[in-house]
Amino acid sequence: MMRNYKMLLAYDGGRYNGWQKQGNTDNTIQEKLEGIVSALAGCPIEVYGSGRTDAGTHAYGQVANFHMNWEGTAEKLMDCINEKLPEDMAVLSLESVSPRFHSRLSAKGKIYEYTIWNSKKPPVFERKYVFWCEKPLHLEKMKEASQAFLGEHDFKSFCANKRMKKSTVRKIYEIQFLCTEDKITISYHGNGFLYQMVRILTGTLIEVGEGKRQPEEISAILAALDREKAGFTAPAKGLVLREVFYGEGREENDSDY
Amino acid sequence: MMRNYKMLLAYDGGRYNGWQKQGNTDNTIQEKLEGIVSALAGCPIEVYGSGRTDAGTHAYGQVANFHMNWEGTAEKLMDCINEKLPEDMAVLSLESVSPRFHSRLSAKGKIYEYTIWNSKKPPVFERKYVFWCEKPLHLEKMKEASQAFLGEHDFKSFCANKRMKKSTVRKIYEIQFLCTEDKITISYHGNGFLYQMVRILTGTLIEVGEGKRQPEEISAILAALDREKAGFTAPAKGLVLREVFYGEGREENDSDY
Repeated sequence: MMRNYKMLLAYDGGRYNGWQKQGNTDNTIQEKLEGIVSALAGCPIEVYGSGRTDAGTHAYGQVANFHMNWEGTAEKLMDCINEKLPEDMAVLSLESVSPRFHSRLSAKGKIYEYTIWNSKKPPVFERKYVFWCEKPLHLEKMKEASQAFLGEHDFKSFCANKRMKKSTVRKIYEIQFLCTEDKITISYHGNGFLYQMVRILTGTLIEVGEGKRQPEEISAILAALDREKAGFTAPAKGLVLREVFYGEGREENDSDY
Repeated sequence: MMRNYKMLLAYDGGRYNGWQKQGNTDNTIQEKLEGIVSALAGCPIEVYGSGRTDAGTHAYGQVANFHMNWEGTAEKLMDCINEKLPEDMAVLSLESVSPRFHSRLSAKGKIYEYTIWNSKKPPVFERKYVFWCEKPLHLEKMKEASQAFLGEHDFKSFCANKRMKKSTVRKIYEIQFLCTEDKITISYHGNGFLYQMVRILTGTLIEVGEGKRQPEEISAILAALDREKAGFTAPAKGLVLREVFYGEGREENDSDY
């Protein structure tokens, strides 16, 4: 019987060219998954992600779905996929859901986390999952600046796609800072994110933390609707897609990340 | 002026052939450090570790010392070494100490930690630092068995060097279990450890957790003084040298790990 399977995915994006398949490579997360699921089904199957993740970006809670004719249990299907996946990718859970569920179109929100290693000590064990800023960052100023991102805004200044024709309006519900001795993790909860938006938001906050910008400048950067006015694009390896939220209704951001 | 420098080291042992230099390779921790320090000094300098770590074993708190003529501050020396080290190694602190300090001979105790990933979910992000046991382990039995290791014993059954001529008596002060949803970390605090001793202790405890052995068997395994009677050698990648302790007096275990 044809069912719609929803899966929760974790991957270390370090050696992949992002989520989105690119036709003739085998080096994207989507292609790895489609190859395995299609082989199990004996026919080509498309795997839909909740959004693209950039080359080098990680996921603890990416969500994807696919339609498949499978006689066994969902658990068995998960085990079969995990058996074939490389050790830097894993299906954490898999279930059969309503035929109308679509991991991207049904998504209501996402949490991305960006981790900065802010210490003179090198990040030996976490080096592949953090961006290392040796100079101490001014945390209170970063927190103050982040407040200006909350709510609904046109985030065109924070979108790396300059030819973006669709709406660049997004809503950020919450930005949290989780700090340990050596690390600052910034979590962004929003209804959707533009191409490289979290990395540009973070790069801009880092520049505030370094004293290169003031928290008061953020409103003007947003108002400028100009990518050149915002900060640098923080490297992909510090970014993790933590969680995707689903609920009632329908979102239509088909250009989401 | 010639000074004795003590340094605290972290390294990801994954791609190294252990601590101990092997003459003609450049693939050990000791050789990497000696190469850098000798280049800074302009003459060959020996770097003494608190003990060898196996190929693939990691360290958060290895201690090493070396004697060097250096005009600058200890901080500057640390920065110069870190600048040359690959990103999977780092000096966390460096200070000038008494000329009599020797990282191995002065050591009074060590803490090693072994981490078992005990979950059906694959350890995507921690895969290089844990040993994955998919089957649920019986934690209470493992804790019970570990009690038999406490105190002073002849650990010959837990020593991988069959031609060991020196004393195989060691003292374990404490064994702690730190558990999270997916992980079991066993920390061993002792006055010294034999070749692969922590890995064999852990392998034996895992076999108890799997139900292949009973906690009551440990005393007989110790008494046998026979490596064949103990459990398997748990893989190196789950092992970390966490801390080395120094204090009054002098230890003489020159075969320590």
